[in-house]
Amino acid sequence: MYQYVNIFEELIKCVGKDSILLDDNKKIFYETDWRNVFIGPSIAVVFPTNTREVCQIVKACIKYKVKITPQGGNTSKCGGAVPINSKDKHLIVNLSRMNTIINLDKDNYSIVVEAGCTLSQIYKFVDTNNLMFPLKIAAADTCQIGGNISTNAGGINVLKYGTMRELVLGLEAILPNGELVNQLKVLRKDNVNFDLKQLFIGSEGTLGIITKASLKLFPKPSGYFTCLIGVEKLIDCILLLSHLKSNNIIPNSFEVINKTTQAVYNAFFTKIPIESNWLILCEIEIGLEPKLSQIYGLFDGVKSTDIVIASNLKDRDLLWRIRENIPIAEKLYGNALKYDISLPISSIIEFVNINGFELNNTFCLAEIIIFGHLGDGNLHYNIPFNEAIFTENTAELVDKLVYKNVVKFGGSISAEHGIGQLKTTWVKQFYDKNSYNLAKSIKSLIDPSNIFNPGKVFGL
Amino acid sequence: MYQYVNIFEELIKCVGKDSILLDDNKKIFYETDWRNVFIGPSIAVVFPTNTREVCQIVKACIKYKVKITPQGGNTSKCGGAVPINSKDKHLIVNLSRMNTIINLDKDNYSIVVEAGCTLSQIYKFVDTNNLMFPLKIAAADTCQIGGNISTNAGGINVLKYGTMRELVLGLEAILPNGELVNQLKVLRKDNVNFDLKQLFIGSEGTLGIITKASLKLFPKPSGYFTCLIGVEKLIDCILLLSHLKSNNIIPNSFEVINKTTQAVYNAFFTKIPIESNWLILCEIEIGLEPKLSQIYGLFDGVKSTDIVIASNLKDRDLLWRIRENIPIAEKLYGNALKYDISLPISSIIEFVNINGFELNNTFCLAEIIIFGHLGDGNLHYNIPFNEAIFTENTAELVDKLVYKNVVKFGGSISAEHGIGQLKTTWVKQFYDKNSYNLAKSIKSLIDPSNIFNPGKVFGL
Repeated sequence: MYQYVNIFEELIKCVGKDSILLDDNKKIFYETDWRNVFIGPSIAVVFPTNTREVCQIVKACIKYKVKITPQGGNTSKCGGAVPINSKDKHLIVNLSRMNTIINLDKDNYSIVVEAGCTLSQIYKFVDTNNLMFPLKIAAADTCQIGGNISTNAGGINVLKYGTMRELVLGLEAILPNGELVNQLKVLRKDNVNFDLKQLFIGSEGTLGIITKASLKLFPKPSGYFTCLIGVEKLIDCILLLSHLKSNNIIPNSFEVINKTTQAVYNAFFTKIPIESNWLILCEIEIGLEPKLSQIYGLFDGVKSTDIVIASNLKDRDLLWRIRENIPIAEKLYGNALKYDISLPISSIIEFVNINGFELNNTFCLAEIIIFGHLGDGNLHYNIPFNEAIFTENTAELVDKLVYKNVVKFGGSISAEHGIGQLKTTWVKQFYDKNSYNLAKSIKSLIDPSNIFNPGKVFGL
Repeated sequence: MYQYVNIFEELIKCVGKDSILLDDNKKIFYETDWRNVFIGPSIAVVFPTNTREVCQIVKACIKYKVKITPQGGNTSKCGGAVPINSKDKHLIVNLSRMNTIINLDKDNYSIVVEAGCTLSQIYKFVDTNNLMFPLKIAAADTCQIGGNISTNAGGINVLKYGTMRELVLGLEAILPNGELVNQLKVLRKDNVNFDLKQLFIGSEGTLGIITKASLKLFPKPSGYFTCLIGVEKLIDCILLLSHLKSNNIIPNSFEVINKTTQAVYNAFFTKIPIESNWLILCEIEIGLEPKLSQIYGLFDGVKSTDIVIASNLKDRDLLWRIRENIPIAEKLYGNALKYDISLPISSIIEFVNINGFELNNTFCLAEIIIFGHLGDGNLHYNIPFNEAIFTENTAELVDKLVYKNVVKFGGSISAEHGIGQLKTTWVKQFYDKNSYNLAKSIKSLIDPSNIFNPGKVFGL
């Protein structure tokens, strides 16, 4: 039997020369994270085209003691999809060439896809079949479904449809020992044994490389009621949400934009058509056509300063573009400490007040950019700072203050972006200790040599 | 320090004399399963009243090498909630005295409850607050939420609301080492570390004893459109479901009843008002009042032999009583081999045809009772048999044939009832081998001495 000289030779034998990237100038793209914060060197980037190749790659890495960073569209906001900086050798396994849509089952409202399909690719495919996949996030054109599953992606439709976890019917994954776990069913009810797929969803590639997935689909709405509403107070946002829900209307999206965010936005983009202390971007899917008029009725008498209702799909796109461009405006505006937090809706006002007060009091930070998915309790809470007078030490103290208050109000220090390498120390500090130890022992059980995405979730 | 003489003395010290049942005549109630099929002896039944006591009980059991059977309302259909027959000593830990509703958060649409609350207790409590908890199963008056979570209960509303797994926001559980895991949040988005609560949901008390849970709530519908429709063929059922979905109507319930089931029912209860090869019991929740008329419109021109639409809540109850009484009629009718299976909706017709043909061909079994939750792919598929001419060996062969076909069509051999002690050997045979081994290794990791619910899920 032929003996390979090194991992490169073995990988080439396994996936072919064209599926390995060794050139440093080209590799750097895959080694650098979405936010340009994390860069981690790799020995190569490999692009498998099927599950069997992924198995072989994993087995080769075990043999040569090489760590693996599974990578989809590399859109993690926490450095989860690039290697860490360590003495180990890291191989990036990029799933983008595994992008086949395997099977659409219209009667069963399900689809089976390879992990490298982009979210947009899936949207388009199901749309032509008059169906809809409801996970909506800004990176849709780039991010891949395997990454969405590994990070339990959220986005703007969680209020009505849940996070990725609730949209996955099944998956296929490769374990750190190179074995394949087949959980690829398309069933709504299946109580055979533990629901192992749940372990892979949201564990950020530390337990398995997802190679295929089956997803829930939904009927395509026949229309949308989309509006931008100005209100005086945060409580008015919560009251409107309650008003809609108590009328049995669950909006798919219910986003808020505070005054500071509006100012930041207006500095770089066409001015938002209305202005108020808080803006709400609310969208309700329309089923049977006449329902629209009833929804109009629901907004009569709502305590608002101003309202813009999209009268066609083009207007709808314009309203959504405001929401989508906020992160870009923010980036242009300058540095900010960024928090992706969630809170019980009933505690949001108190958190915003108390945390705002303490930030101002302790650090003279009065300007806070707040926007995001109020409907599901998830706020993007970002604090602009002046680099010249702001040390790393201060940043850490601000982090601590914010997270302390988040936890005090029963919230989460990472609502939808996950942990990656960014928040590992905070998790250790703020997560339930027994839960942390249990999770870590499961990681050690499944990946005793710490081959899969080392340094993520648990840190070094 | 005082040394306890035995576990009984230690348990009495921990929970008090009134919380332990030792009398054989009274214990037998808790040792016998819902279907009177499984009886497992215990040394005692203990009724803790809080989480601390559960911890202490677990620690005492570790010390004295006693196994624990966690028990809620004891409504498992697979013998999951009574001890197995083995040489070990078994203690039943019954959660029924932990039945406090801890906190309702109306704005957040969530509730925190102790594990021993019955499902009906939760219905009533949230109903008075104009809210709704959508898990609907027949045992609601008796079953407890801890058991519902441990078994990932399903029922009649899964099509719209998902199974228990999708309704749990958080939980608190005691591990087999007596440690407490606190995952009790009320957040819609929370991506901190692995989602450990998923491990406890559906693992049938083999990994942890659930002591508290936080649940999602929904607005109470303002009304219901409920109807019973007769159709000629199974395909007509599937077409009606597709028709509704493509009009953006997701029924909460979409149940079917085949001709044999109707005959069995009519033999023991007031005759069902209509008769057809297949009956569909369909329910759609009404939000804004006028929507009802639109739903009526949707049923115009549907290919049906007959239709009864409930015009008030009393009529609605009458229709639902038919569905609810089917299992009773079935019991009166005699013995049957019972299967709780699920299939992709697109494969149901083929399964019913081929499996029916093979059962008739091989075993001369032509009479099949089919009813259940077509909308989510879950059928209760029961085969009456004559005990006099039917051996245990034949039963096993029938099981094998049914399960072989279920798996062939991508289905599940246990849709909603779980595994318990009933189906452990079938799971070993039909579940993905690597998944099975992985699940077993997680069980060994968390419960190395196999203290929690031994003999369930994995068998002996």
